Amino acid sequence: MIAYFNGSFIPEEEISIKWNDRGFNFADGCYEVVRSYSGNLFRINDHVKRLAYSLKELQIVSDIPEKIEGIAYNLLEYNHKNQEHALVYIQVTRGAHKRMHRFPTVPVPPTVLATSYPLTPYSKEFQNGAAIILTEDYRWGRCDIKSIGLIPNILSQQKAWENNALDAVFVKNGMITEGTYNNIGCIKNEVFITPPLSKKILAGVTRAVTITICKELNIKVIEKEITENEFLNMDEIMLLGTTLEITPVVRVNNIPIGKGIPGDITKNLQNTFIKKTLL
Amino acid sequence: MIAYFNGSFIPEEEISIKWNDRGFNFADGCYEVVRSYSGNLFRINDHVKRLAYSLKELQIVSDIPEKIEGIAYNLLEYNHKNQEHALVYIQVTRGAHKRMHRFPTVPVPPTVLATSYPLTPYSKEFQNGAAIILTEDYRWGRCDIKSIGLIPNILSQQKAWENNALDAVFVKNGMITEGTYNNIGCIKNEVFITPPLSKKILAGVTRAVTITICKELNIKVIEKEITENEFLNMDEIMLLGTTLEITPVVRVNNIPIGKGIPGDITKNLQNTFIKKTLL
Repeated sequence: MIAYFNGSFIPEEEISIKWNDRGFNFADGCYEVVRSYSGNLFRINDHVKRLAYSLKELQIVSDIPEKIEGIAYNLLEYNHKNQEHALVYIQVTRGAHKRMHRFPTVPVPPTVLATSYPLTPYSKEFQNGAAIILTEDYRWGRCDIKSIGLIPNILSQQKAWENNALDAVFVKNGMITEGTYNNIGCIKNEVFITPPLSKKILAGVTRAVTITICKELNIKVIEKEITENEFLNMDEIMLLGTTLEITPVVRVNNIPIGKGIPGDITKNLQNTFIKKTLL
Repeated sequence: MIAYFNGSFIPEEEISIKWNDRGFNFADGCYEVVRSYSGNLFRINDHVKRLAYSLKELQIVSDIPEKIEGIAYNLLEYNHKNQEHALVYIQVTRGAHKRMHRFPTVPVPPTVLATSYPLTPYSKEFQNGAAIILTEDYRWGRCDIKSIGLIPNILSQQKAWENNALDAVFVKNGMITEGTYNNIGCIKNEVFITPPLSKKILAGVTRAVTITICKELNIKVIEKEITENEFLNMDEIMLLGTTLEITPVVRVNNIPIGKGIPGDITKNLQNTFIKKTLL
């Protein structure tokens, strides 16, 4: 695969990160994952805006957001002939510098890379539903930044995997926040309910798309805190994210949600979502 | 400088980290910083034990803790002729693998590196005292693990720097936890007070050494939570860490501590500390 690395397109294997890259020593960076359906980057503008937001909040100065669309389309051309479904991964760090906690006194160029690989949409879980577990949200206080500091996500995702679940959903002070790489949407009495945007969750692109779809379908949307008990009693639950798209949740901690199969409103949302990805 | 990287001693510049090293994508790793005084690694056994603890908590399987002492002494020989004061940095990650949140299904070899550089002990701040600021502790819930996921530490240290302070000390729910790369010790009415070990702070090697020194000097030690108000009214405050050693704090948020100069008990602790480093 061809990758983008600090201004050049090179074979992915040739990317060489310095040991004192601040991304490697400190998780001092952020990332985005963008999906391409048949060569079309889905909601690229939303991802560009969010990357710019993460960089701003981390105080990393870079013009990469304005270049990302072009770089990503180049990768789709080089690696996927502009047709194959694919996923583009973008990572930006504060760059390499003699190790010290504070920012380099004289700024160094940020490290920028982008890679891509084929990815078929509408997975098995998208169709059949997934099991999840609940786990304590012990992440940092700025989950609105798409930081590469993902170790609590890693450990929680691993715990899910070991419990035969697709993902772990975080609970902070008794309230549902989000999954390890996705947001949460629920249906109760035909209303779409999702935790409100805050520093506790990422402003997900698929979350925003799903809210738009709800409005198009005249489904009432409420953004509000959800207790663990309310969550377990939802009629339908779904995971919302670039990788999982709209994936129905049919079991939480081994407790069936609704009838234990993907719900009708979720399926309705998925159908409209699929149409949007085909545009 | 010569560095250790995955089994070999090579020039530091030749270390090449893969873009999909989990340390670079996820902060999926941990580290240690060990100090050498004139070629003697200070409290190496404590650092080895803590590295083993971090690895265990992160579920990274590696025999590197038992090898670290030998590796570090090799670096001191190659880079510092066994004599110069130096600092050894050790980092271990879960290794490189196709990017996915959960652990690699078939484990990959951890990435292990160690580097060293000269570092003079007993800095200007060690002698004259330092200013610090207080800042909200918004780090994750497992600060007992010496994880490389340091982005909140980075942003807080930078904030300190921009406020002409040596460090930022975290306050969680009104209680003092620790600095961005050191523990906190205080003196009130001739008693040494430090926050107790928990998941909220790192079990610092210098913290433990300082407690030992207190006992040797017949200074009473109390490990207890410290409120922000209690902190500002301490007679003496010090930062405790491998890099800062025992550094007196003379101002907090621009408010003088005690007489605004290094306190007598702190100086007493420093003198015994210096003797221990010379052994």
